[in-house]
Amino acid sequence: MAEKITKREIDYSKWYLDIIKVADLAEHSDVKGCMVIKPYGFAIWEKIKDQLDKMFKETGHQNAYFPIFVPKSLFEAEEKNAEGFAKECAVVTHHRLMNDPENPGKLKVDPAAKLTEELVVRPTSEAIIWSTYKKWIQSYRDLPILINQWANVVRWEMRTRLFLRTAEFLWQEGHTAHATKAEAIEETEKMNNVYATFTQDFMAMPVIQGLKTESERFAGADETYCIEAMMQDGKALQAGTSHFLGQNFAKAFDVKFANKEGQQDYVWATSWGVSTRLMGALIMTHSDDLGLVLPPKLAPIHVAIVPIYREDSQLEEIQEKLKSTIDELRAKGITVKFDDDNNRKPGWKFAEYEAKGVPVRLAIGPRDLEAGNIEVARRDTQEKQTISIESCADHVVALLDEIQDNLHKRALDFREKNIQKIDSYEDFKSKIDGGGFFLAHWDGTAETEEKVKQETKATIRCLPLDGEKEEGKCMVTGAPSKQRVIFAKAY
Amino acid sequence: MAEKITKREIDYSKWYLDIIKVADLAEHSDVKGCMVIKPYGFAIWEKIKDQLDKMFKETGHQNAYFPIFVPKSLFEAEEKNAEGFAKECAVVTHHRLMNDPENPGKLKVDPAAKLTEELVVRPTSEAIIWSTYKKWIQSYRDLPILINQWANVVRWEMRTRLFLRTAEFLWQEGHTAHATKAEAIEETEKMNNVYATFTQDFMAMPVIQGLKTESERFAGADETYCIEAMMQDGKALQAGTSHFLGQNFAKAFDVKFANKEGQQDYVWATSWGVSTRLMGALIMTHSDDLGLVLPPKLAPIHVAIVPIYREDSQLEEIQEKLKSTIDELRAKGITVKFDDDNNRKPGWKFAEYEAKGVPVRLAIGPRDLEAGNIEVARRDTQEKQTISIESCADHVVALLDEIQDNLHKRALDFREKNIQKIDSYEDFKSKIDGGGFFLAHWDGTAETEEKVKQETKATIRCLPLDGEKEEGKCMVTGAPSKQRVIFAKAY
Repeated sequence: MAEKITKREIDYSKWYLDIIKVADLAEHSDVKGCMVIKPYGFAIWEKIKDQLDKMFKETGHQNAYFPIFVPKSLFEAEEKNAEGFAKECAVVTHHRLMNDPENPGKLKVDPAAKLTEELVVRPTSEAIIWSTYKKWIQSYRDLPILINQWANVVRWEMRTRLFLRTAEFLWQEGHTAHATKAEAIEETEKMNNVYATFTQDFMAMPVIQGLKTESERFAGADETYCIEAMMQDGKALQAGTSHFLGQNFAKAFDVKFANKEGQQDYVWATSWGVSTRLMGALIMTHSDDLGLVLPPKLAPIHVAIVPIYREDSQLEEIQEKLKSTIDELRAKGITVKFDDDNNRKPGWKFAEYEAKGVPVRLAIGPRDLEAGNIEVARRDTQEKQTISIESCADHVVALLDEIQDNLHKRALDFREKNIQKIDSYEDFKSKIDGGGFFLAHWDGTAETEEKVKQETKATIRCLPLDGEKEEGKCMVTGAPSKQRVIFAKAY
Repeated sequence: MAEKITKREIDYSKWYLDIIKVADLAEHSDVKGCMVIKPYGFAIWEKIKDQLDKMFKETGHQNAYFPIFVPKSLFEAEEKNAEGFAKECAVVTHHRLMNDPENPGKLKVDPAAKLTEELVVRPTSEAIIWSTYKKWIQSYRDLPILINQWANVVRWEMRTRLFLRTAEFLWQEGHTAHATKAEAIEETEKMNNVYATFTQDFMAMPVIQGLKTESERFAGADETYCIEAMMQDGKALQAGTSHFLGQNFAKAFDVKFANKEGQQDYVWATSWGVSTRLMGALIMTHSDDLGLVLPPKLAPIHVAIVPIYREDSQLEEIQEKLKSTIDELRAKGITVKFDDDNNRKPGWKFAEYEAKGVPVRLAIGPRDLEAGNIEVARRDTQEKQTISIESCADHVVALLDEIQDNLHKRALDFREKNIQKIDSYEDFKSKIDGGGFFLAHWDGTAETEEKVKQETKATIRCLPLDGEKEEGKCMVTGAPSKQRVIFAKAY
């Protein structure tokens, strides 16, 4: 990797983009705001997807697929939802191109192929899904419906940023229907818990679970649960959301069911989603000035082996000697890459695997071979160690677990150091630009929330679910408050 | 299942839609031409997808993701490709909706948000991908690029049919770049072979591999390889295609590379795809008048167990007695559903699993229990057999293999019976409406091909790759021909 990485302390934004570039994760496309997810980036996303999909199925959900287009009349049915997304919609108005008589070889939109009703490219699928659920639900026996969809969605963003904010992104969206309010709330909480478990156990990224304020809620939801993570620059990143939609969509689409008593009632709904944004969160939680750092559970390659040799016979000897170690690792489900590419020098390969965040790198040359040794380098701490080839497989298996744990611990320590209680608004204003999470009392009004946002660019990330109920006074207005909330600047 | 299934001999088209309905696979949506793939249908598609994905990776391909939109200027770059798809494009022209001042609560397209360049929703991704590959390829060292994408695509179809022809469908599209023509042709053939292996070994659907005629080729390809299957009504279904694109896209997007000798040359390309159309093929290859029939390798549920009982204690006894059988089956990777739903009678369940194509159904009542027996019903032949509970697990494992083989054999026998050599056009015209494949000599001209199509609605499905080279005379014009081609009516 000849390419330089901007240091985090110099320019965190630039560093972020440099990491994406050197690790070969994604790039801007020729379509404004849309990205190309490159094979190595996509392999990480596949790991995220496969694990989440397993967890969704284990909690009783099934996958299905709904159309990418939402007819305008359906889109506008739930008014708050429509209002929330109308300003960022890609709209299909025609269904045909024709030869442009004025520009031979060029095409133009065929005015004769105008649609009678415009189609919105889904920014989220509540509307199209609830117009479908209406046909599926008659009685309480048809409930609950527990469906998830893996899909692409489009929200026309003016200021985009790879993975964090793109016009098109990939995500999953769960859409469930229930007979009772209690059951729907239980589902909303359950899925927020699934997200928290996933981000902590697989991404090694600690999160705070909480509720959004009314102004930060999903358009059309009665309550939005979220998981919030702290990035290395102290900013917050909303990593997932789970919405209790009440009966809003059921009312908008007239979806009623006969309950056990034979009475008609509107159906209760939830929706929940995480997206390729998680890739951005993953990068900004663990990576360093040398490149990407990946938790082993999401790494496409766990172990890279770099043989150091002059003669082909030496390479063969190394291969022969490591065969049982490699077999043993692979049998344990560990992905091993033995890199015998003749066109690259060992030093180049070391830098390459460092840049790509491969958790463990092994190196072995003729002298190591003679001594029966191998060098083990761990990506997270940069530590190197020479061990015997015989003990290598067991050592690596244990080391991968250790790296996974260490990354989580390191991120948790960082967050603990950068979260503080604060009671004075003046104090808050002087500290907020330094980053971090601030636990402050808030009077519960949208006005105060907006004032803080205008004056400091910080927002209320959430009302933490496990926050202690502590009486206090709003740091801005002095009005009474029953719980501290988290203020932070956010991605 | 109270719902009736139209018999195949009465109305094959209606039967097809009935099967989709009773097996709960998919339905029409509120968006013209777009379908909703329901959970059970999607579970089958996931099995198809997972297996193909594995085979693509085993042949060296990686997944990636490219934008759903293609700017018009890129779309029109490869003229033949553009011409082929221009008439069926969904076109995005605006990026915002606004409140409609004339209709309170309604939205309208915001005329101020007109895009400077229209975006085509991808009907296929060669254009956007080759505009990207241009940035990735400088030297032969950057080649080959072996990428696959799982995605949704949109082709505006006026006459749609669930799974077979829908405006939006799901597919995979492989897009590879090579340094030499020979290597690109090898890749094209390799992937057509992968498709043939998959359809035969997993879908239990025999296919004929062949080349398309020039008029049936993919727009922008120099050669299109295909796999053609015969449905139960004798019609052909194109189940997958693999295209040798020559240097057409490299020239359109100016993608050159420095070869080993340091000279600049255009890159060679292939693309290949299969889609949710395979679901239609699967249905029409094996299913019968009682419902869906699934090959075990693609069945979401392999074995359904229906306990027959009056008292809860009997149910418990059955559960207890079958526990080790179920555990043993599950340990072997077999998906078992033990259906203890109290709201449904055994007879209803039998019909339900029959309709859904579950390969093996077990039933057990108090008397069987006493005798230590269980009833085994296989879906493909409708045969029932009573065996001992002890031998059940081994029996079912063997039976699933047998069913998989039997379905393939049955489909192959059907095809062999319905394929014939034909030398007289009169004879052909009298027989074509009865269905089947006709091996006939053809003079190689588009005119003759078109004449047959106009007069009989039959098309040349392919020039079979393993067809014997036999001199003969075109059945229509009498002009010389070197090989028989396959004529058939097609989906």
